[in-house]
Amino acid sequence: MTAFATQTFAFFLSAGNHARILVALFIILVAAKLMAELFERLGQPAVVGEIIAGIIIGPGVLNLIHLTSVVDGISSPTTEATVIEAMAEIGVIFLLFTVGLETRPSDIFKVGGTATAVAVMGAILPFLAGWGLLSLWPGHSWIEAIFMGAAMVATSVGITARVLSGMGLISAEASRIILAAAVIDDVIGLLVLAVVSSVAQGGVDYLQIAITAAMAIGFTVLMIMLGSRAVNVLRRPVAALRINHSLFMFSLVLCFGLAAVANLIGIAGIIGAFLAGVMFSEATDETPLHDQAQALTEFTTPFFLANIGLQLKLSIFLSSQIVILSIVVTLLAVLTKFIGCGIPVLKKGRRSAIQVGVGMVPRGEVGIVVAQLGLAMAAVGDNVYGVVLVMAVATTLIAPPLIKLAFAGEQAREKGGIDRELEYKIR
Amino acid sequence: MTAFATQTFAFFLSAGNHARILVALFIILVAAKLMAELFERLGQPAVVGEIIAGIIIGPGVLNLIHLTSVVDGISSPTTEATVIEAMAEIGVIFLLFTVGLETRPSDIFKVGGTATAVAVMGAILPFLAGWGLLSLWPGHSWIEAIFMGAAMVATSVGITARVLSGMGLISAEASRIILAAAVIDDVIGLLVLAVVSSVAQGGVDYLQIAITAAMAIGFTVLMIMLGSRAVNVLRRPVAALRINHSLFMFSLVLCFGLAAVANLIGIAGIIGAFLAGVMFSEATDETPLHDQAQALTEFTTPFFLANIGLQLKLSIFLSSQIVILSIVVTLLAVLTKFIGCGIPVLKKGRRSAIQVGVGMVPRGEVGIVVAQLGLAMAAVGDNVYGVVLVMAVATTLIAPPLIKLAFAGEQAREKGGIDRELEYKIR
Repeated sequence: MTAFATQTFAFFLSAGNHARILVALFIILVAAKLMAELFERLGQPAVVGEIIAGIIIGPGVLNLIHLTSVVDGISSPTTEATVIEAMAEIGVIFLLFTVGLETRPSDIFKVGGTATAVAVMGAILPFLAGWGLLSLWPGHSWIEAIFMGAAMVATSVGITARVLSGMGLISAEASRIILAAAVIDDVIGLLVLAVVSSVAQGGVDYLQIAITAAMAIGFTVLMIMLGSRAVNVLRRPVAALRINHSLFMFSLVLCFGLAAVANLIGIAGIIGAFLAGVMFSEATDETPLHDQAQALTEFTTPFFLANIGLQLKLSIFLSSQIVILSIVVTLLAVLTKFIGCGIPVLKKGRRSAIQVGVGMVPRGEVGIVVAQLGLAMAAVGDNVYGVVLVMAVATTLIAPPLIKLAFAGEQAREKGGIDRELEYKIR
Repeated sequence: MTAFATQTFAFFLSAGNHARILVALFIILVAAKLMAELFERLGQPAVVGEIIAGIIIGPGVLNLIHLTSVVDGISSPTTEATVIEAMAEIGVIFLLFTVGLETRPSDIFKVGGTATAVAVMGAILPFLAGWGLLSLWPGHSWIEAIFMGAAMVATSVGITARVLSGMGLISAEASRIILAAAVIDDVIGLLVLAVVSSVAQGGVDYLQIAITAAMAIGFTVLMIMLGSRAVNVLRRPVAALRINHSLFMFSLVLCFGLAAVANLIGIAGIIGAFLAGVMFSEATDETPLHDQAQALTEFTTPFFLANIGLQLKLSIFLSSQIVILSIVVTLLAVLTKFIGCGIPVLKKGRRSAIQVGVGMVPRGEVGIVVAQLGLAMAAVGDNVYGVVLVMAVATTLIAPPLIKLAFAGEQAREKGGIDRELEYKIR
């Protein structure tokens, strides 16, 4: 009995990683979809349900998913944590790729002026607010204040895109302004980060910042302007390839290729994936590409959403000082984005201004990356890191109901509610 | 300049894992699809091209993908290696899930008797050959000989399934015998492994072996008999859920759930995924489920195939002793499966016997798992481990051209070659 038990244990050890990864993926899928269903029934956005599912199965509550293991006193990420994080990254990449597929280059150019104003105003106000607040708040260094400002700049458009595409509104004018502004916003965020990092190290190198900026802007403009034409030219030779589903595979290769290039230039990988989607949006209307990409997105997005919840450490809320600072920072983060991004759109009516304002609120993983860099450079302490994490998750949780509210009339106008439900069922 | 370079470096370090994973996934997708296209044009199976792509980009040749990193003299898997392995596992799970979707429970029952005979004979002959060879070959212990026999037992049906579904022949009678036999074969492999491990530890616990066997057989039979009915009953309530694509998400949850259960019982996760597919095969003919699952399979399978190539260490071929032993073991592995699995099908004609015989040849990752367990138990040395690895990869490389040859007439009979090509293009 014991001999066999030992062998069985040895077998599980050797096959253990596989089983543990499968169990983790299964738990995330089940929890995310159960909470999504519950939230849909309560009239709340499914996205919020899936993030909360991550909090519930995470270390703070049920502890079903182990993110770190401690061996000989050294804490390191578990295999499942590494895989979940990769699946989360792949999930948000497919999400933005699918959003890109619904976005035509001409749509972006049409809203280019407004989107630039939205991005710039939506970067300046949050930065000033975060920097100002921590400069006045006792117990923080000037460099922490600057990092807090930088962490509040970049919008994480994944959440907004998910809510809008769930409502079938991804091609509404306000949605297009939000998407275009988020692309520009990410480039601005990169520049702010570069300047802030320079300051933290005691100097600013304007030449290098200019080079990085030129690369990021050039990459984005080039892809939007020429990418679509390139795909149009390549479409026929690709369809003539002998491999199965050649157009689909070609689009996946470009999606991951541009995501990797964007990442190497220093902007978020999701921007590359979005641009890849935009390149294919016009040439592929009558192909199954959109449905195929949608299937990948449906499978992988729950990992992206649940992972946001998994990252939240509930224990930091034990300090009332941190709780108050978190609330103030989150409120400022919401208000400054709402006002900063709303004002440039006022000329298109108050309704559009409100839609764009709330659509730009979520910060998500971009703010977390800035805080992680600050932590790694020893420019930011654990508390500010925790506050940024709360701000990122909280803005992500607050935004979806507001977006749903702001776009509610739109949805009813575009399509009858019942038709919409039916269309979902058929898909 | 240097200050900024340092910060940029720090930034890449923090975002570095993401970029490295994206680059690795991109390289695998591009290499696999380029080689697949090349092999298709040469009239060879795309599957072999994708495995060879893994060898080419792996440590032995171009070294584009780093699987291990050495820190302070300790070698450990890189983040990208962990992610690639997980993607490979997800890939073969979706592959078998899709194959299951094309397999009706009645199909399996129809060929049950033949399949059982194929599985049993196809287990006995390879075991005896592997055990006998290493008992006679100088320099190996009796326990190594037993492990070699065990490693030669279990067929890895993923490769065969991929080739057959690529040819549109997954529902031919011989294909159904192969699939059913592979499921039974895996249960036998588990039992052999349990007995061998017991012997290696100095005793056999018949009670535990009986319990494990009963669990594995019970799980398989239960899922095939009741699963399909359960899905039929649940189909309507699931379709009435509010979440998008609810049937698709439900099938994914079951796919990962059964894969995890199979893994925990001790059989391969892919058997659970296959059974999940079988459960949905009848109830979902008019839904987009098949196309959605196919999209996931197309994206993830290249990682499964390329990973087989990535695992092959070319350096072991430097010893001529190992080369000769590898060749003999591989030849025996091919011949014993071919003969053992072919004989029970002879009553259905020589053609069917050959088809089933070659279809059962690939060993793939199952044999590798057995060898890894032997290595972990110190029952098997590096050389035998290397030989098993070569045998597993070689049978996987040899089988696809043979399968294509054996089924060639079938393909022409089922559908005109040109029609077939056209149908691919349309999909």
